[in-house]
Amino acid sequence: MLSPARYLLVILLSLIGVHFLLTITHEQYGNAISFSHLKDKLSCPAPSETIRPESFAESEFKNTTQRKSNAAFVILARNSELNGVLESIKMMEDRFNRNFGYPYVFLNEKPFTSEFIKHTSDIISTKAEYGVIPPEHWYQPEWIDEERATQGRLKLQQKGIIYGESISYRNMCRFNSGFFFRHPLMMKYDFYWRIEPGVKFFCDLDYDPFLFMQDNKKVYGFTISLYEFSETIETLWQTVKDFMQRYPEHISEDNTMRFLSDNGGESYNLCHFWSNFEIGDLNFWRSPAYMAFFEHLEKTGGFYYERWGDAPVHSIAAALLARRDQLHFFNDIGYKHDPFMHCPTGAAHTKGKCWCDQKESFDYDGYSCHVKYETAMMPSTPAPDPLS
Amino acid sequence: MLSPARYLLVILLSLIGVHFLLTITHEQYGNAISFSHLKDKLSCPAPSETIRPESFAESEFKNTTQRKSNAAFVILARNSELNGVLESIKMMEDRFNRNFGYPYVFLNEKPFTSEFIKHTSDIISTKAEYGVIPPEHWYQPEWIDEERATQGRLKLQQKGIIYGESISYRNMCRFNSGFFFRHPLMMKYDFYWRIEPGVKFFCDLDYDPFLFMQDNKKVYGFTISLYEFSETIETLWQTVKDFMQRYPEHISEDNTMRFLSDNGGESYNLCHFWSNFEIGDLNFWRSPAYMAFFEHLEKTGGFYYERWGDAPVHSIAAALLARRDQLHFFNDIGYKHDPFMHCPTGAAHTKGKCWCDQKESFDYDGYSCHVKYETAMMPSTPAPDPLS
Repeated sequence: MLSPARYLLVILLSLIGVHFLLTITHEQYGNAISFSHLKDKLSCPAPSETIRPESFAESEFKNTTQRKSNAAFVILARNSELNGVLESIKMMEDRFNRNFGYPYVFLNEKPFTSEFIKHTSDIISTKAEYGVIPPEHWYQPEWIDEERATQGRLKLQQKGIIYGESISYRNMCRFNSGFFFRHPLMMKYDFYWRIEPGVKFFCDLDYDPFLFMQDNKKVYGFTISLYEFSETIETLWQTVKDFMQRYPEHISEDNTMRFLSDNGGESYNLCHFWSNFEIGDLNFWRSPAYMAFFEHLEKTGGFYYERWGDAPVHSIAAALLARRDQLHFFNDIGYKHDPFMHCPTGAAHTKGKCWCDQKESFDYDGYSCHVKYETAMMPSTPAPDPLS
Repeated sequence: MLSPARYLLVILLSLIGVHFLLTITHEQYGNAISFSHLKDKLSCPAPSETIRPESFAESEFKNTTQRKSNAAFVILARNSELNGVLESIKMMEDRFNRNFGYPYVFLNEKPFTSEFIKHTSDIISTKAEYGVIPPEHWYQPEWIDEERATQGRLKLQQKGIIYGESISYRNMCRFNSGFFFRHPLMMKYDFYWRIEPGVKFFCDLDYDPFLFMQDNKKVYGFTISLYEFSETIETLWQTVKDFMQRYPEHISEDNTMRFLSDNGGESYNLCHFWSNFEIGDLNFWRSPAYMAFFEHLEKTGGFYYERWGDAPVHSIAAALLARRDQLHFFNDIGYKHDPFMHCPTGAAHTKGKCWCDQKESFDYDGYSCHVKYETAMMPSTPAPDPLS
């Protein structure tokens, strides 16, 4: 005969077995029976608390066990740019981050106001950190010859070049070129997505671009490429050529010189990635190769004597120091920074549920470098024609 | 002794019991082991198919058993307004509808193009219907004295009144005043939310405003109120007074005349709700009271001889034919139709995760009627002072 104790033992063992199996195979089962879940179910909401419909609560970011990259958004902004920052963040949350939950790092040369901190953190689904930029990472270094710098600004201003006269713009370009990736708040991250105030994101992203970069060993991702004003970088290319000669070990064998130059490196065609949008590998900027590149540029004073932008600096470095297959054009990210927009077309537009106008996409505009990028990405030796 | 068959039977019964309990108590467990789920798990995605992260799939609208109102968004638009329509819809989806899943009705005096239909339905999480407006609901009726109408348009144009010369604007005002709620595509619905191209929604809504209207027997909801141009409605108020005298049975005893008039109804103070945003009860417009009101207005020809807007027409009707407690100011819906914006302030701003600038809210601007609305909503007889 089967004794009651034996029956119980068998049932108990079966239950434990099933529970164990479900716990390890079905995360949702594990969550459903977790103590914290049971506690939530049993506790009553406070009287003033509004009970939200289930679908709304579900849509908020949950710290799931979904695989994530060690990454953050980085936003360089002034307190006065709060409204533009809110617009950019809200769109980023809507299009991507409410489902992926990456943190934000805000950087400013002055402390952020409590108003800025309150309103930005109010609309962010995850963590936000607010940092002040060390003065030596921002202001014009003392060794810069101010008379020569003044002459340089005057010259560009007279030529009507945008930000020609601006010192703060030069501070920003130098900071973005050489310092943002070593700010104390950024040091713990491996990947970043740069966001500017007042930009627009048009398409729903259903995958994690940080993980895409990481898994595919990409170092630099962009959406828009275009020509630089030659007046702002008169001696930059010669400085780059000096670097290539002095540090050949830092130049990638499979580089993307074809994007930068139409004559094998003799002269710069002014093409660059528009760096107000960047998804990148922070350790690429922190690498000995890029640090040597930045220091080589920095000591010429070109950031202040001319008006070297972080866009050509980053672009030239990404194209020369990284492998060609480490660059990535994010076709599926609809993006606008006035006056230019990249809008996915065709199936990508539909898949992303984009709200931008495909006809206004900048990709094949005469001022765009996209065709040069596409050409540079083609295999150097064409595959043999299968019909010949 | 316990025979192996008996062991098996006990284990089997235990498993079935546990399975049964989990199926009925945990929906997610039921889903996890459902045949369709197992089939999905076992079948391979098509080569071009991207596997979406789980949290993304969750965030898309699911046709849950959540209680819903019999309601729809209604958008009157031209094909040329596609980009503005996409912007409005995307924001509506982001702020509200991705969690609530209401359908859209698009109306146009001409057939919508396939491009318009494709791009709008691409970004809508639920159903969209596209209708043509019957000509008799849109175009100037034949009995209108065209010479008098031309004189009326010329007069307003000379005074520099916006849309003073426009016939199509008058068509639209008359359609919105008397016909949108009886379009065949709208007949099946009880509540509507009017959306215009190019408007912005700033705050996350965590409740269903349609159900709020329905459950509280509200008939008209708005966000912005302001003054009308008196030149466009020269004889409107006299026509309204004639209506009140002729149909006293249609005037609500607890009406909101205090919002419309500062002298007990003698003259109109020009205050009206800005009808480019409306959440309303379609059956209120379809009621004998409103139909009599509209017909009374219609037969004077004022929609064409002057330039009566649907905003004052709707507002006057809502204020006089409905009870005061049937109007509702949606303070928590941040909304902008250039050039005016309503932005929630304080705790409502935080709760809605709004991205609008509170300092720019129109509510207490000198051109706003909000203070008059607040005053009109106060109890007529103040409650006795508890301290006296």
